[in-house]
Amino acid sequence: MKKAVILLSGGLDSAVVLWLARSKGYELYTLSFDYGQKHLKELESAKKLAELAGVKLHQIITLKLDQWGGSSLTDISKEIENGNLKRNEAPSTYVPARNMIFLSIAASFAETIGASDIFIGVSEVDYSGYVDCRKEFIDAMQNAINKGTESCVTKKSPITIQAPFIDKTKTEEILLALELGVPIEHTWSCYKGGDVPCGKCDSCLLREKAFKEAEFRY
Amino acid sequence: MKKAVILLSGGLDSAVVLWLARSKGYELYTLSFDYGQKHLKELESAKKLAELAGVKLHQIITLKLDQWGGSSLTDISKEIENGNLKRNEAPSTYVPARNMIFLSIAASFAETIGASDIFIGVSEVDYSGYVDCRKEFIDAMQNAINKGTESCVTKKSPITIQAPFIDKTKTEEILLALELGVPIEHTWSCYKGGDVPCGKCDSCLLREKAFKEAEFRY
Repeated sequence: MKKAVILLSGGLDSAVVLWLARSKGYELYTLSFDYGQKHLKELESAKKLAELAGVKLHQIITLKLDQWGGSSLTDISKEIENGNLKRNEAPSTYVPARNMIFLSIAASFAETIGASDIFIGVSEVDYSGYVDCRKEFIDAMQNAINKGTESCVTKKSPITIQAPFIDKTKTEEILLALELGVPIEHTWSCYKGGDVPCGKCDSCLLREKAFKEAEFRY
Repeated sequence: MKKAVILLSGGLDSAVVLWLARSKGYELYTLSFDYGQKHLKELESAKKLAELAGVKLHQIITLKLDQWGGSSLTDISKEIENGNLKRNEAPSTYVPARNMIFLSIAASFAETIGASDIFIGVSEVDYSGYVDCRKEFIDAMQNAINKGTESCVTKKSPITIQAPFIDKTKTEEILLALELGVPIEHTWSCYKGGDVPCGKCDSCLLREKAFKEAEFRY
């Protein structure tokens, strides 16, 4: 049975990607990160989702990026701004090199257990403008993994990054989620950690917009 | 003053690279990793070296790669083999994707503080055969950083990986160390954490060979 490592934040995208990998029959290994984000709600969601998906192993990696901040998601002195999907610059919620770090750690784990695939739920269509959610970057990381891991260099056990939503809209993701039976109610997308989603941050706005569109098409 | 992030393991290579960056007038920020290696002697060395170099900030990043092992350096059930620099396969001390992880985290920190350079002391000439010490891999990571960080994509504050020893022998490094006044006595290269270096592991063998050669030429 082929093994897949899935980067599972606990949000909608990563949940759908987990169920997609599950539908393809992989043995599932999920990784979540306690990277110093201000709230742990998404980590609780990730744990619940991993349980519901019946993964072989769910791990939480602790890596305190709040040691240097650099983002309103990790720096308590910075406020998470209200959403604005038309801004021209990177939002304050951008976390420097986050997906590079996550993919590197996933590659390390994948190589150790002999997994053939790493799944990540990024999309460059409906997104907050993070440069590390673009196909160009995913391709660059694939190349780095090809050149920087023994399994790939020797071709004994190649590792492929699967980013199945890279060119998909969030609406398409939701339609797929419904088809796959993803327990959407257990996902958490809001950048803030309140009792209910704030409804105002980029992530809430993107999610709301996509659900509205999906409703009309479903 | 330009800022440089230096990956400082506490070994010889990273110490020389630190002193090299220092000689070029950078403001120095050193990063060391408590990644679950079996001994912490190199971290003590790193701390001492950072102090002696007069760095602006020295940080130890905790990231427990021993959560999954995959290397005799992090997995207590695996023995560190005696050195053999002519083997054809990766040594047991290979840590999956280690330099990818270190460079990603360095990129995150560099982007946050606006550093222009990341220094790493890898060489593909005198080395243990780790694939992530090769120029091909460093180039691939440079490309990943170019595509995956906001500062590089927007060209506002590009980040360059400096691997000045990539094509140098360890003997050349030692000669440079002597020139720069690196306090070599405070570096720790041995893979094991005894009171004195074991003299048998790859790292000890490489160091010993280089010192012998350097003596003859100095």
